[in-house]
Amino acid sequence: MNSFFPPSLENLIDSFAALPGIGKKSAQRLAFHVLSMPEGGAESFARAILDARENVHTCPVCQNLTDSELCPICAGDRRDKSVICVVAEPRDVLSIERSREYNGVYHVLHGVLSPMNRIGPDDLRISELLSRLQDGSVKEIIMATNPDTEGDATAMYISRLLKPFGVKVTRLAYGIPVGSNLEFADEATLLRALEGRREI
Amino acid sequence: MNSFFPPSLENLIDSFAALPGIGKKSAQRLAFHVLSMPEGGAESFARAILDARENVHTCPVCQNLTDSELCPICAGDRRDKSVICVVAEPRDVLSIERSREYNGVYHVLHGVLSPMNRIGPDDLRISELLSRLQDGSVKEIIMATNPDTEGDATAMYISRLLKPFGVKVTRLAYGIPVGSNLEFADEATLLRALEGRREI
Repeated sequence: MNSFFPPSLENLIDSFAALPGIGKKSAQRLAFHVLSMPEGGAESFARAILDARENVHTCPVCQNLTDSELCPICAGDRRDKSVICVVAEPRDVLSIERSREYNGVYHVLHGVLSPMNRIGPDDLRISELLSRLQDGSVKEIIMATNPDTEGDATAMYISRLLKPFGVKVTRLAYGIPVGSNLEFADEATLLRALEGRREI
Repeated sequence: MNSFFPPSLENLIDSFAALPGIGKKSAQRLAFHVLSMPEGGAESFARAILDARENVHTCPVCQNLTDSELCPICAGDRRDKSVICVVAEPRDVLSIERSREYNGVYHVLHGVLSPMNRIGPDDLRISELLSRLQDGSVKEIIMATNPDTEGDATAMYISRLLKPFGVKVTRLAYGIPVGSNLEFADEATLLRALEGRREI
């Protein structure tokens, strides 16, 4: 009894199981849930998938996801377009916006360099970043990739490409997270916190 | 910035977050995954949902899920239709089929009695079970709901309804799981294992 459930149910289970972080058992549970949705629920779920797929595209300037021609941040005139914050993923833009401190614009790379996963410079939106520097209006690039090996390597790689443009390139500060405890900080973080110490 | 992502992406995230066991962060990850699917991937996912919803229904005899008129088990003539195994959910049929020992047919209740969740007898497929007993061909009903409070209560409730039909009603045996260790068995299981002891 290999395909025990009806074929169209098996197919739905397989579709769910193909999503990241969803195993076979969870996929079954989700598929049963979809079947037991009230009238119209499954249809509007399917519609949400198709709508998102159809309407959402990347902003031609910053490569963030949007469903208008330019993303709201690039389209508005309230942001300082001489500072570009470079992040790996669209969700990272959300994180930085939550700090309510940053007033520049963004550039989303859609990934980080990762030789293990065969992701090279051509798979990221790096050339789009370089083309934003052509007119000389950009003063600073803040590299805000994650502080891990791949994020650091990506920041380093891009900062070298930016050298010829003579633009200031900075990196988010490493250090002890606010509200945490020295006792639980790892050595690497403590070392970076010491290196980055500032006069008070 | 309440709806930070484009509306159709927010909508997809909300659709995923409405599924059981999927939180806001997982929903974001799944939505981004759907957007990054290769050409046609999102469309076939949406189609899988609609197909399953359209084609899968309950078998009019045993209430199991099927996409043909009768489910394969009820439709075939190789199964002993005088024995009905009553289970709570369609996935329980799969579990019992895996034992490769059972040759009767099934009845799926689609739930168990649960006053806490306001699930009463009318929410289960109990009347459909009773109507299968009208012609007198059924000899035995095996109550195979889970051995927990709600499963036990459901089995007890249904067995009382079955009394007037004069049909033999049995319950799956409780006991120590095969391959496990007495040391780790809980008291309730040990008590049931003692009560159900058999001569060898």
